[in-house]
Amino acid sequence: MMPLQISCQIQSDSLSIIMNLESYLSEKCRVIDAALEKYLPPEDRFPDVIYRAMRYGVLNGGKRIRPVLTLAACEAVGGDPEIALPTACAIEFIHSFSLIHDDLPTLDNDDFRRGKPTSHKVFGEAIAILAGDALLAFAFEVVTGRTKDVPAEVVLDVTRRIASAAGTDGMVVGQVVDMISEGRTVEPETLEFMHRHKTGTLIEASVVCGGLLGGATGEQLEALGLYGKKAGLAFQIADDILDIEGEQAKMGKTAGSDLRRKKATYPSLHGLEKSRELARRAAAEAIDALKGFDERADPLRALARFIIEREA
Amino acid sequence: MMPLQISCQIQSDSLSIIMNLESYLSEKCRVIDAALEKYLPPEDRFPDVIYRAMRYGVLNGGKRIRPVLTLAACEAVGGDPEIALPTACAIEFIHSFSLIHDDLPTLDNDDFRRGKPTSHKVFGEAIAILAGDALLAFAFEVVTGRTKDVPAEVVLDVTRRIASAAGTDGMVVGQVVDMISEGRTVEPETLEFMHRHKTGTLIEASVVCGGLLGGATGEQLEALGLYGKKAGLAFQIADDILDIEGEQAKMGKTAGSDLRRKKATYPSLHGLEKSRELARRAAAEAIDALKGFDERADPLRALARFIIEREA
Repeated sequence: MMPLQISCQIQSDSLSIIMNLESYLSEKCRVIDAALEKYLPPEDRFPDVIYRAMRYGVLNGGKRIRPVLTLAACEAVGGDPEIALPTACAIEFIHSFSLIHDDLPTLDNDDFRRGKPTSHKVFGEAIAILAGDALLAFAFEVVTGRTKDVPAEVVLDVTRRIASAAGTDGMVVGQVVDMISEGRTVEPETLEFMHRHKTGTLIEASVVCGGLLGGATGEQLEALGLYGKKAGLAFQIADDILDIEGEQAKMGKTAGSDLRRKKATYPSLHGLEKSRELARRAAAEAIDALKGFDERADPLRALARFIIEREA
Repeated sequence: MMPLQISCQIQSDSLSIIMNLESYLSEKCRVIDAALEKYLPPEDRFPDVIYRAMRYGVLNGGKRIRPVLTLAACEAVGGDPEIALPTACAIEFIHSFSLIHDDLPTLDNDDFRRGKPTSHKVFGEAIAILAGDALLAFAFEVVTGRTKDVPAEVVLDVTRRIASAAGTDGMVVGQVVDMISEGRTVEPETLEFMHRHKTGTLIEASVVCGGLLGGATGEQLEALGLYGKKAGLAFQIADDILDIEGEQAKMGKTAGSDLRRKKATYPSLHGLEKSRELARRAAAEAIDALKGFDERADPLRALARFIIEREA
């Protein structure tokens, strides 16, 4: 975890709360990292290279934004976050799988991520492909096999939503559009479609699944879905801005790589200032979606601000 | 489907049955192919290339052995095979995903499969990788979202077993061992480990999940598990033999490609005659595992023989 210097002041209906997001995040990350480590197969099993590659792709100091959102959404509706931990980890496994495959030479061809060589640079392309495959399958093993004290119908619903967000209604489709758009001028609608699928659907699923596991009502689920949609959009715009502004040391990958590859991004389409405004608006709309929730949703509110204020 | 000239005479405890496997297989394949076609996203959706690649990888005249086993196992315990259809298709999607990724240049580097250019030859490597990913995720969407009239606990158990067979306890691990063994002399135990993981676990899961969905008792499940293990072994040995004996026209991929790449196979380790004997023995043991089942298990018995007698 990178140290955070943020204390967010949040307006929530009638009450104003100073919340120390830093300690919330570091506590949740500690719990999530411990669970990821516990769930992953040990690397002293034969054939160890695949287990080492799986662990390398996951246990890498990631920000864990998606699993934190899952736990925070579960808490926001009064659920025990412990119940949502396997799902939170499954979503992080899926996120890790997507990074490993996206970094491959034939896709984004990135050599570094978070300051470390990417999977295919360490293990070779074949093992990187297989480690991604293994993490995707493993995510479903964890969510279906490890979730306790929740009706099986709910776990099934959660599993289906995660599968949909990972595949044909989400991430994979977003990556395809990203790829076929490279070097072309794209319409704002295409950019939005790409971002919504590549990042938005899994972030939305992270939030909604946390709510489902916490026993959310239909109305709460709808609000969480809207929060997730807007937070996901804010996240992607902020990511595009960071790619331009970030320095290699902070991002751990070559900053400006989107620009270098002539990828469609919010700043390239709307300019930097307008993009910052769009990110702020999306975060505000995310927070607004939670107006029916009490103070137990404050971590979600703080996370929406963190998403656009983070530096990496 | 290739036409089959087999009518199997099967000894089943006290009764001897002539069963027309050909008509059974073609009927089941018709049902499975129609369901695969129905479940797959249409290819006129944006971005169409990924949906075309998914369909290309699945709707290709495959033998559908795994999904047929699922339906046959469901029937063997008196279940309605209709109930097992989404699971059967999910398993075929996972099988198709594995073929697309295994054929990639950085893995097995195969240009042809079933007489047609492989996915990466048609769509390029990036789309082939993403189409495989999409099919793997989609399998879980189908099994969790399409299965009806079965307790949610059973669907969860089925999903977990499929995930485990696809990933860290199955296929991916088998492919890793296959890869790291290439060009080396391997011990018989390593060859067995590789085959059990690469092919065996998913075939076993196909059978066991069919039984679970059909309402099998614990005893029946155990017998089906043993049948699946032995049938999976027979299948892989037969595949190794076919790779040597097959002609390119029949196999649709370059026959002898395992040999060319100095891959560890049953014939390379045990010779052709011993391998044939091992395949026959495994099929006989599979049939023997079903001795507590009545004539509703005859398709499973016939399939065990078909697995070692097929010509492609």
